[in-house]
Amino acid sequence: VPSPMEGHGVYNQDSQVQAAGASPGLAFFEEAAATATLPSPPQRIGIADYGCAEGRNSLAPIASAIAALRRRDDDACPIVVVHTDLPGNDWTVLFDTLAHDPGSYLRGSVNVFASAVGLSFYNQILPPESVTLGWSAWSVQWLSRTPAAIPDQVQVAASRNPEARAAFTRQAAEDWIAFLRSRAQELRAGGQLVIVTMALDERGDFGYGVLLHALYETLEEMVASGFIQAEEKRRMVIPTVGRSRDDFLAPFAQTGTFAQLSMERIEIFAGEDRIWNDFQHDGDAQRFGARWAAFSRASVFQSLASALDGGLSDPRAGAFVSKLEARLAARLAIDPRPTNIPLARLRIVKNGG
Amino acid sequence: VPSPMEGHGVYNQDSQVQAAGASPGLAFFEEAAATATLPSPPQRIGIADYGCAEGRNSLAPIASAIAALRRRDDDACPIVVVHTDLPGNDWTVLFDTLAHDPGSYLRGSVNVFASAVGLSFYNQILPPESVTLGWSAWSVQWLSRTPAAIPDQVQVAASRNPEARAAFTRQAAEDWIAFLRSRAQELRAGGQLVIVTMALDERGDFGYGVLLHALYETLEEMVASGFIQAEEKRRMVIPTVGRSRDDFLAPFAQTGTFAQLSMERIEIFAGEDRIWNDFQHDGDAQRFGARWAAFSRASVFQSLASALDGGLSDPRAGAFVSKLEARLAARLAIDPRPTNIPLARLRIVKNGG
Repeated sequence: VPSPMEGHGVYNQDSQVQAAGASPGLAFFEEAAATATLPSPPQRIGIADYGCAEGRNSLAPIASAIAALRRRDDDACPIVVVHTDLPGNDWTVLFDTLAHDPGSYLRGSVNVFASAVGLSFYNQILPPESVTLGWSAWSVQWLSRTPAAIPDQVQVAASRNPEARAAFTRQAAEDWIAFLRSRAQELRAGGQLVIVTMALDERGDFGYGVLLHALYETLEEMVASGFIQAEEKRRMVIPTVGRSRDDFLAPFAQTGTFAQLSMERIEIFAGEDRIWNDFQHDGDAQRFGARWAAFSRASVFQSLASALDGGLSDPRAGAFVSKLEARLAARLAIDPRPTNIPLARLRIVKNGG
Repeated sequence: VPSPMEGHGVYNQDSQVQAAGASPGLAFFEEAAATATLPSPPQRIGIADYGCAEGRNSLAPIASAIAALRRRDDDACPIVVVHTDLPGNDWTVLFDTLAHDPGSYLRGSVNVFASAVGLSFYNQILPPESVTLGWSAWSVQWLSRTPAAIPDQVQVAASRNPEARAAFTRQAAEDWIAFLRSRAQELRAGGQLVIVTMALDERGDFGYGVLLHALYETLEEMVASGFIQAEEKRRMVIPTVGRSRDDFLAPFAQTGTFAQLSMERIEIFAGEDRIWNDFQHDGDAQRFGARWAAFSRASVFQSLASALDGGLSDPRAGAFVSKLEARLAARLAIDPRPTNIPLARLRIVKNGG
């Protein structure tokens, strides 16, 4: 979810890490488009994009799914693409992106229509059996709520506090169930859902170790300098989780299916660390730091800023974000390191198609 | 279309004139809901709200249409409501209104789903034959573009310039055709469309005479005081039109139908002037002026402000809007008068159902 206070289009611009991490999901999504059970007219093919943000990173996957579908049905069936995110998402940038981005799937396609739903995907938000293909990239790691404070960090994976860890683990399990149950209502029989999301790797590592450490140290420095208060920092939490292979499979463990869904494919893999790769070529440590800081800003600074005394409309919110970005960039530039980016890709099928 | 610069929710708060003017459309819409041809499951009932703004004024008509539909089909058929407006609409307020307003049709209803489309309704923007009921209140008076400058006013109806008047008349005719043609593609056979919009009354009057006069004088005063430049005022245009009964009927004149649409009912009527009615009770001239000024701000100040040298991000934009509102309110409070509010209500049916 992009921040209104950060200005239009920030997420579209600074989500290259997410774009790189979503591309391994493309192959799964094309597979889904090639094998999902299709409705016949006058029914419509529904494609749902769960957690679209400003839309840029959704254009390529959806365009490629449409191309794969059209190889099967020859433009006959109307395709309706629904982008979902929270109400506070920047919908104007999304609609402008759909209308004007050169990569928009609306350009040059026939019988394809776009729409949006600004409601939480932890409930059923689309009509029953309306979705032929679902796509969700970098979204289901966001919990439906912050289940606990984290006394010693802003990300639970880097915390050693057992209560916080337990609360996040419980919430992650509940939210995964709620997400699957809602999608099961929305998918038609034979429909498929592809998910790319943060994960725990086979060693249980959430990754981003250096980044999280630097982020927390920068916040401590801001407390020390008096720019934010200790109590504000204590409230700062990024409500995301990485799930392990077992976490993803848990709802399916008993019977092999859950709410008529089957886990067709699951892979935990390491996302490509483009920022490190580029640093190895150009040796530009400033750029290295700036890119990770921009990624952090687009991804999580809104969550942190909302803990300021005045929330997102705190008079310090703008300066907080720019200072945090600048100082984090500087800190990361001192000693560039590769980043572990554990990701999961899942292909889930609704039975009966 | 509400203005981002005016802050969230302004249109929801200050569109009472529109709300009052839309309620006479309710009876037509309920009639449409009672008589439109319904699809049967697994097809869905589509309700389209063309020009939703922030949504508040759509809640009651859509809730009443849903109630009328449910008397016919007993919750069986999923209902999908699609709200459309331009990309720059405040979609966050729309989604918050749908989720949280006590009057939202999502509350307590079963099998009803909401979505949004941020594209101009002068094109087909929804799937073919997906709309059972269409609703459009206070929207089709907005032209797809400003066809000409208006040298002597900001609203063409108050202008005596023949070139400006001719250009607006041409654009109004073209846009009406484009609107109908697009809706004809989206409506299913037997589907119906109800429109409430500004009109010319039987004497050819657009109404709002005192308000438009006061608005233009206030702008001239702002030029005289140096707050805006004469060239900026010259660019200020409100791209709306009132259409006459004949204008609405023109596309149907030859054969009685147009693009498979028939004009089932058409009425030109005088909208209730609640602000004047209240003034007659309370005698509060300040409040009278303030309410018409707030109506103008929510409706058209964005169009005017976009003509500032720096457009909507001009450093004077905020002050321009507040000064204009305050001065207009003061001017209108001097000598309160009733306002002629010519409106049209139309019920259009797609043939073949």
